[in-house]
Amino acid sequence: MALIVQKYGGTSVGDPQRIERVAEKVMACHDRGDQVVVVVSAMSGETDRLLALARAVARRPDPRELDVLLATGEQVTIALLSLALHKRGCPVRSYTGTQVQILTDSAFNKARIRAIDAERVRRDLAAGRVVVVAGFQGVDGEGYITTLGRGGSDTTAAALAAALKADECRIFTDVDGVYTTDPRVVPEARRLRRITFEEMLEMASLGSKVLQIRAVEFAGKYNVPLRVLSAFEDGEGTLITYEDPDMEGPLISGIAFSRDEAKLTIVGVPDEPGVAYRILGPIGEANVEVDMIVQNVGADSTTDFTFTVHRNDYEKALERLRDIAAELGARDVSGDPRIAKISLVGVGMRSHVGIAGRMFQTLAREGINIRMISTSEIKVSVVVDEKYLELGVRALHEAFALDRESMAEE
Amino acid sequence: MALIVQKYGGTSVGDPQRIERVAEKVMACHDRGDQVVVVVSAMSGETDRLLALARAVARRPDPRELDVLLATGEQVTIALLSLALHKRGCPVRSYTGTQVQILTDSAFNKARIRAIDAERVRRDLAAGRVVVVAGFQGVDGEGYITTLGRGGSDTTAAALAAALKADECRIFTDVDGVYTTDPRVVPEARRLRRITFEEMLEMASLGSKVLQIRAVEFAGKYNVPLRVLSAFEDGEGTLITYEDPDMEGPLISGIAFSRDEAKLTIVGVPDEPGVAYRILGPIGEANVEVDMIVQNVGADSTTDFTFTVHRNDYEKALERLRDIAAELGARDVSGDPRIAKISLVGVGMRSHVGIAGRMFQTLAREGINIRMISTSEIKVSVVVDEKYLELGVRALHEAFALDRESMAEE
Repeated sequence: MALIVQKYGGTSVGDPQRIERVAEKVMACHDRGDQVVVVVSAMSGETDRLLALARAVARRPDPRELDVLLATGEQVTIALLSLALHKRGCPVRSYTGTQVQILTDSAFNKARIRAIDAERVRRDLAAGRVVVVAGFQGVDGEGYITTLGRGGSDTTAAALAAALKADECRIFTDVDGVYTTDPRVVPEARRLRRITFEEMLEMASLGSKVLQIRAVEFAGKYNVPLRVLSAFEDGEGTLITYEDPDMEGPLISGIAFSRDEAKLTIVGVPDEPGVAYRILGPIGEANVEVDMIVQNVGADSTTDFTFTVHRNDYEKALERLRDIAAELGARDVSGDPRIAKISLVGVGMRSHVGIAGRMFQTLAREGINIRMISTSEIKVSVVVDEKYLELGVRALHEAFALDRESMAEE
Repeated sequence: MALIVQKYGGTSVGDPQRIERVAEKVMACHDRGDQVVVVVSAMSGETDRLLALARAVARRPDPRELDVLLATGEQVTIALLSLALHKRGCPVRSYTGTQVQILTDSAFNKARIRAIDAERVRRDLAAGRVVVVAGFQGVDGEGYITTLGRGGSDTTAAALAAALKADECRIFTDVDGVYTTDPRVVPEARRLRRITFEEMLEMASLGSKVLQIRAVEFAGKYNVPLRVLSAFEDGEGTLITYEDPDMEGPLISGIAFSRDEAKLTIVGVPDEPGVAYRILGPIGEANVEVDMIVQNVGADSTTDFTFTVHRNDYEKALERLRDIAAELGARDVSGDPRIAKISLVGVGMRSHVGIAGRMFQTLAREGINIRMISTSEIKVSVVVDEKYLELGVRALHEAFALDRESMAEE
């Protein structure tokens, strides 16, 4: 008997018929003798409907009261799913975030989970009940309703799984797993049977939007095996766990990429301590998020400093950077708003030299100029002109044989 | 400085524009220096929308989970009204039934309020805040969400007013007060400035559907002055209080009536102890609600027993009554499904004989045959053929001069 947390997103519970199908899946798991906790999102479209209502009475809605409003979305779903289960003769209890006591801080609209009192859920499970919990929401120390921000239901599921020491946390979604890269770009992209938490974090943050990154962090921190699988088709999906030390992993698990990036460079900055902060501090204050950062020391006593931002922030960042350049006495400022980032991700990289070399060679063979390079323990990222994005991803996917399952993955 | 509980029904908060108008009314009260607690219903149509969703997944929805679903209706309204107030710079807190701790029994879908912990509301009021509370809902001793049944928001308002010892509980509705009778039947019907709790109970239960009867009971029990007034127009409405002992009340406050009644008679029942129970027991077991009951002892040792039921229950009741007649050895069973009831209501009746006489005389003058009579301390009810209903009500309204305000009402 295993304890399984299942999570269904808005599309999977988008109408009464789909809710019935979810009920069937939950029943199947319960009938196999597993203990099941189900976390659900609001029905697709519901959160937008509520937001439109809120904006109709207040253009900039008060965050606290907005959470009271938005939390009704998941409450509707837990009730409907429980009704569907009850109809099938399945003993069930539904709980809002307040009832379960998913305790969060008081950052309304983007609260973070602090603790979960899962005692009540445990009692229900012991009594043979399925427990249905509203995702995305919690309660602060004063009893006010909070929400975790968009996509927070994944986090609820992972956090509940951690609190309950669940055997597995299954995220049912509209894709059937995590792929080596985006199948829309590389038709040969292959579903991964396993991936490590660290790889998944790199893949998620780099634009493979299968899972909320906070959910992966949670699951990783508490070592809850996480499985991404399809809500609509059968299949084993992709299991996200820690690296098995006895297992020879593949060199590369996948290729993440992101469009809509822009690159800015400040040239000839005096190479003094603290200069990085004096450049990036004002950029951050302007609410611009910085992604990659590269610094090269030149021959003279100056340095060149390049970073990437989202394309939407390019103009704002460029303007700030010109002011900063004037202050610091830098030689020049330049930028390019049409770049893209390609990243190879794989824990196998740690123990294998030459990955980066093979990457650069592959891109060179296709005539793709690399504009920036950044590396971490399990990732090599390059920035290229946006027009080369698809070509580069496809060439790398083939060069690293990602379309073929490696022996080690069995 | 007064403490005022305001209650707005579904029509008054039916869309964002109307919610804005309610916010203006609340602000006006708050700006006058009063402490304001607002109880709101679900937006009109919302409860039906949710019920349709529930029925789409389960034809006979589990009452417990249905309450989780329905409670979202008022939660949406408290959030939207609070957003509208917050936008106007009004300090405000919203609370669900669970948050306020409107403690009820566990009769899901038709729970009754047991206690209210208004401490939190009191603290907010002391801090100068407006408090917005979801009507119609509560929480049972185990923390499960309950609802009070349809129309329960009035009860929430009255109960909160009682718990807070409010100076007045104002029920804003789509009528501007309580009338001497239904203006659709008698165009001369007049809004009452005052009416007693007892009169209002008789009026409400007899078909003047302005206020939920449980709300009046609550307000009466805890002596909270209740005022019914229009959500859309200015006006003082109708104040419902206890009788002022120093005040000479009018003889009659109003005329209530109800259509859709049916009458059943069992003739020649042996006049023995317990016979009433042996007749009405099985009728009640068949889930038929009995209204008026009249028993006449005949010359022989038998009795005739007549009672009224809702017309929808007529056939069922008649069938049962035939079985009962056979068992008891009664002579005959008869019935009439096309009758109506007219009631004169007034606390003044207590100290004035002759009201019933004048009533019978007035009806006789119009050629209206009285089929049943029943009297209480503050009420005289007669049953007449349905076709005479309007004629009878109009004749009585004129005979008792209800179109003219009596001196005593000033």
